[in-house]
Order: sequence, then C-alpha cells, then structure tokens
Amino acid sequence: MESVFASIITIGDELLIGQVVDTNSAWMAQELNKAGIWLKRRVAVGDDKQEIINALEDQARDTHIILMTGGLGPTADDITKPVLNEYFGGKMVVDEKTLIHIQHLFANIYRRPLTDRNLLQAEVPDVCTVLPNKRGSAPGMWFEKDGKIFISLPGVPHEMKGIMTEEVLPRLQQHFTMPFIAHRTMLTAGIGESYLADIIQPWEEKLPAHLKLAYLPNYGMVRLRITGSGADKEQLDRDLDTEFAKVKVLAKEWMVIDEDLPLNMVVGKLLKEQGKTMSTAESCTGGYIAHLITSIPGSSAYYKGSVVAYANEVKENLLKVTPGTLATAGAVSEETVKQMVKGALDALHTDYALAISGIMGPDGGSPEKPVGLVWVAIGNREKTVTHQFNFRFDRMRNIEIAANHSLNLLRKFIAEQG
Amino acid sequence: MESVFASIITIGDELLIGQVVDTNSAWMAQELNKAGIWLKRRVAVGDDKQEIINALEDQARDTHIILMTGGLGPTADDITKPVLNEYFGGKMVVDEKTLIHIQHLFANIYRRPLTDRNLLQAEVPDVCTVLPNKRGSAPGMWFEKDGKIFISLPGVPHEMKGIMTEEVLPRLQQHFTMPFIAHRTMLTAGIGESYLADIIQPWEEKLPAHLKLAYLPNYGMVRLRITGSGADKEQLDRDLDTEFAKVKVLAKEWMVIDEDLPLNMVVGKLLKEQGKTMSTAESCTGGYIAHLITSIPGSSAYYKGSVVAYANEVKENLLKVTPGTLATAGAVSEETVKQMVKGALDALHTDYALAISGIMGPDGGSPEKPVGLVWVAIGNREKTVTHQFNFRFDRMRNIEIAANHSLNLLRKFIAEQG
Repeated sequence: MESVFASIITIGDELLIGQVVDTNSAWMAQELNKAGIWLKRRVAVGDDKQEIINALEDQARDTHIILMTGGLGPTADDITKPVLNEYFGGKMVVDEKTLIHIQHLFANIYRRPLTDRNLLQAEVPDVCTVLPNKRGSAPGMWFEKDGKIFISLPGVPHEMKGIMTEEVLPRLQQHFTMPFIAHRTMLTAGIGESYLADIIQPWEEKLPAHLKLAYLPNYGMVRLRITGSGADKEQLDRDLDTEFAKVKVLAKEWMVIDEDLPLNMVVGKLLKEQGKTMSTAESCTGGYIAHLITSIPGSSAYYKGSVVAYANEVKENLLKVTPGTLATAGAVSEETVKQMVKGALDALHTDYALAISGIMGPDGGSPEKPVGLVWVAIGNREKTVTHQFNFRFDRMRNIEIAANHSLNLLRKFIAEQG
Repeated sequence: MESVFASIITIGDELLIGQVVDTNSAWMAQELNKAGIWLKRRVAVGDDKQEIINALEDQARDTHIILMTGGLGPTADDITKPVLNEYFGGKMVVDEKTLIHIQHLFANIYRRPLTDRNLLQAEVPDVCTVLPNKRGSAPGMWFEKDGKIFISLPGVPHEMKGIMTEEVLPRLQQHFTMPFIAHRTMLTAGIGESYLADIIQPWEEKLPAHLKLAYLPNYGMVRLRITGSGADKEQLDRDLDTEFAKVKVLAKEWMVIDEDLPLNMVVGKLLKEQGKTMSTAESCTGGYIAHLITSIPGSSAYYKGSVVAYANEVKENLLKVTPGTLATAGAVSEETVKQMVKGALDALHTDYALAISGIMGPDGGSPEKPVGLVWVAIGNREKTVTHQFNFRFDRMRNIEIAANHSLNLLRKFIAEQG
C-alpha cells in the first residue's frame, strides 16, 4: 500500500497579498490528514493564468491529488474556471443541475434578481465531473489527467467545507487504498516547549519509526501530538495507546487534558459533568473570554453571561466593586478582581465566576503597573483564588493569551471542586 | 526600474497539516506590498530537509527575495537552521550578541534556568548576517546567493513582526530600487460582489493599465481596492485619486467609508468625533461585538462595556427585559432587543447602545424562528431602530457576520445623529 500525497493550491490576489487570511487550507489539510492522505505542500498564487498553470504542473509532479480553492467568483478577476477549461482541453457547457440550483437559490433563498454573471456560474468545462455546491452558486469541479486528480473548489469557507465533506472525501476514499492514520494529542500548560522536550527526550528517541511526535505551541500552551500510520488499524491503535500512556506519565504535572480539545470545550465539559453554571466579569479582555465560551454550541447549558466592565463605573454599578478599592488599589489589582468575582456571582447567579483586569497596551502602562500586567480571580461561593500574570506581547496577543491562561485557571479550579 | 518579486516559504509540520492557521504570511505579504515588493507565491512545506531545499530552489528561480518563517524552535522537529547552514555552505558558530541576549532574556525576563537547548539558539551559520530578535531567543538570518536574498525568521508572530519591521524591511529598501505602490480602498455594505461588479464595469474596463481593481468580499461586505504602481509618486497619487473619485460616485449608495479601515475603527472614529459613548447588550454574539470594539487601542474613550445576556434571567435582571415579553414574544424578537437597548442605556449610562439576539445554530431553531434569525436594535435616548436578519451560515460565521452587520447599523445610526 503506497502513501497518497496531496497538495493544496490557493488561488486569489486577495489571499496572496494578505488582505484575507487563508483559513481554508488549514481545515482542508486536517481533513485530508484524518482520511490518511499526507499533505506535501501548500501553495498560494495570484489570479494569474501562467502562475496557476505552473502551480498545477509543479504539484502534479510528486502528488496524487491537487486541490484548488478560490478564483471561482462571478467577477472579472476570478479566472480559475476558464484557465482549467483550457488546461484540461475542454469546452464550456451549461450544467443543467447547477443552473436549476442557481435559479432556486436566487428565487427562494437570496430573493434577488439573477444577473448574467450569476448564470455564467452554471457553465463548466465538459471534461470535468461537477461536484454540487448546495450552499452557493459556484460548483466544485473534478478533473483527471495522467492518473492525477485535480479538484477545484470555491473559496467561500462554508461552501468549500460542504463540498469537501459531501463529495470530495468520499470520492477520494473510493479512489485510493490508503493506510490508516491516527493521532493521540494532549494539551499541556505551564511549561515551555524546550523544557518539555528535555523531559520527554529519552522516550521520544525510542519511538518506533511509524510514530512521529510534534510539539504544537499555541497561546502559551503546548500540545503534543503523536501521529502514526499503518496498514493494520488495530495494531496502530495499540502502538499509539502504549506510547501515549508513557508520555502521559512523563508530562503528568502539566497535562490539561489527554484529548485534542481546546480549553473552552474542556471547561464546558467539566461544567456539564458537574451540572454547574458559570459567568465572567471582563475588563481588559473586553468580551473575548465570553466569546470563546459561547463559540461552543450548547454553551447556554452552563454559561449565563458576562459583565464586560470596561469602564470603572460599570465595575462599580454592575459588579459592586467599591469606589474605595478602585481609588486605592486601582482597577488592575488583586482586590478589584476579587470583588469582580463576587459581583459576577451575585449579579449573574452562577456557581462559578471568572474575573479579569489588566493593561493590554500599547498605552496605559506605568512603572508600577506596566503593559502586560493582568490580574485574574476565579471563585465560587466558598472560595476565591487569584493569579497575577505579566505578558510581553502586542495587544491582540496579550488578550488571547490572557483569555487562555484564565480559562486554564478556571479549569483547574472547577476540576478541584468536582 | 525593474519590479522586485518576493516569495514566502512557511516551514513546519503543524502549519502544513493545519493544526495551526498561518497568519504570518498574510501579514508579511501586506508589509512587502506596502514597500513596493510584489509577492509572487506563498508555499508551505513540512519540517523535511528535501522539501525545504526544493522550495528554496523553486522560489529562487523567479523571485528576488525568498522569505522563510518557522522551524527555528529549540526542539528536534525544527530543522530549518541546520538545513540552511548546509545549503549555503556554512559552519555553525556562536553569535556572541545573540548569546548575551538569550542569557539576559532567561535571567531577567523569563526568570527560568537556561538549558543547553536554549543556548543552541545562539549558534548561527557563519555565512549569514544575524538579524537580532529582541522579543525571543531565535535570531533571524539573512543569506545572499547568486544575487538572491534569503531571509529566515522565527514563526512566533510577534517575534517575526519585530524583526521584519526593524531589520528586514529597512534592509530590503536599501538593497533595491523599487517602484512606488499605492492603494485606494473603500468598504461597501448591502450589495453583493456581482451586483457591484455590474454597476462599476464600464468604469473598470477603462482603468489605465498601471491601476488594478480587486474585490475583497468579507463577512457580507465588499471592499474595493485599486492598486497602482509607478516610478513617479505624485503622478501615481493623482491617477489613483482621479479613478477613486469616479468609483466613489458609482458606489455611493453602498459606501461605508473611503478608507481601508475595519468597521470597528470607523465606529470608534465617529464616536470620538461626537464625544459620545456606547455600550452593547449581546445575547447570540456572546461578547464578540464587545471584543471587536475593545480590540481597538484607546476604545475605553468611548466604550463603557457590555452585558452579555446569554441566559434569559440575565436579560431580566441586568437589562430589565420584562418576563412578559420573554414569555410572549420570546428572547429572539424585536420587542426583546428594543428592551435590551433601553436596558443597556440605563445600566451602562451611555449615549448609544446596540442590542442583539438570535439563533446561531447548529441547534435551537424552530419553523417560526429558524437558525440564522437575528434581531438587532440600535438606539439612543430619543430613538431606537431595529433590523431583522436571516443568515444561512455555520455558527461561527453567523456570529461574525451578525457582529459586522450590527456594527454597520450602529455606524449608520451614529452618523445620522452627528
């Protein structure tokens, strides 16, 4: 059984020059990987005929599957479809099913008049298999040439994901015989990548060749992932479990969870297990922690809400922080976040609360309270714990890292009460 | 004067297989673009020697500058530095300045013991120019070969950005004579890409060859950007201003702003001009609007805070939505968001308030109130306006688009009062 290799070509000036961040190819890479297809390369090119053709030829040399996204829009700068038509020697024909679908979309969903530009989206090269796009007007296209598969998908993320899931992955799985790929992932916090590496090095050096370790540092935490491949799924799972058990012992002190779950889901899982609720009182993170928690479907079962107390008067009025505390200790202080926790528990009637106040920068720092100083408090009716952080990043990263570290403190606190 | 072309190579298994989304190369692309350097291609490869070397050779064929990020960490999976040392025929030597910097970082900033792995980060190929990294331990490296420039930077975003700004861009500007590049950008809302294209097509077709138009659709809005290049900066600015004035007339009805500013900054700018304050009351967006507003430095001048009222009891207790309204009209209704606006104005003492309630999915919909239904109200003491949306995306995209459309309604409301 041979390994199957894929490459992804992202097409579009706006992606190439960075006006839009490409999140598509990361998602596609993960899905391919889960399906046992190894991603060899990702390339981004502009809306330029010769660049697109060069990329197709370069990637076809050493990968079996060439996936493209983008450049299928209705405007003149989107040229992917005519370029592919010419490259694969087809001629443009109207795809009847796509035409009916587009007419339905505009008449019943968008409720807008159908323009000639939109109708053109029903035209496809006659040498491709059409991959229906239930969520939009530009269909996906599947070409085969010299034993290689070329797939073109729209760049709109939810449209691309729909076609990948419903059409591309099932068709690829039918087409190739692939090795099984499996992963074991754990999240660690409170230890840097290089220290962790020192601790697990003796184990890592003895890993069998079909298992590979990766360090994935993110927002001040490190995920460890073992990836394995093999023809025998059960044997592969046994090998992975054996090695994962060993590294879990070595990294026990810093392990947050032994699953590939983000922290906001871990917190939600714990709360659901305990049947408890929580709230937040955010100053410096300005609603970002609330956003992380509520981005999980079903979070309303355990999350009641937040008071984003950006102004001091909101801390006083809604969270009952005393004017005296704000005047003497200041808004960024242990005393203030303790009172904010109590205020959130009272105002939002929850079992747990998390409060945070800090200086995210670039301005607002002082010698005593520099940019990056953050106070966090976590509590319930019985107990409140506090923690001081000193971050050294830019504003957005300070917000993200502070949110993640606070969620980790909350996780520990909830787990200890459980 | 010849055009200068660059390519970016992103190195790392975690980026290649999509465990981490690459935001570095979008930022780098924008900075290069502003400096008059055209990005030709972006490539992502894994931590694999041959793949890295192939990428270097492929990119050096038709670009002048090859920028690399990633693969410089202290762990065994990071191999970029030894690969570059071998490729450029160097030998590893300790860079004294980097060594002193690393010792300082660990002693005074990280306050952690220095391990052998960290010390190794002070070693660099003797054939490179070291680009100091003030924010971390892995220095950047500048190589030259056959008239091409190869630059290796760490993958940690704020470290990479620091070295780019302080070292790479000034050095590149010294090294090359570059054409001037300038942009004019406007943000539009309320019109689809293809309709907008139909309206401005006659103008677009007559654009002079050194000006290029791009459509940048994002979160239900479309940015229009004209990019020009030329040797004479003043002439270029005149040409851009002339064409920009024409398209502004054509797109007047949908224009949000004629600058390259995101909506959250436009709203902040208006509020500062009026000397007014605002607050938010969020249900379905769960703090995301507060986060967008507070991600702007200095937003505390006009933003007081938010009540994230995820649970109905929080809508009642903190925003004074009446139990009767919640029982009869429901949490997702025009009546509820109107009361939420009033509640936010009262509780947070602001001039303006924005309230939102909806069903983001995947669950929670009903035939009468399907997933994607969102009610928004914007108001001040005198007046409240409401708007109903029906989005058709996944949860995260529904949240993002609802937040953006609400901010646009808020912008219009504030502008009308000004």
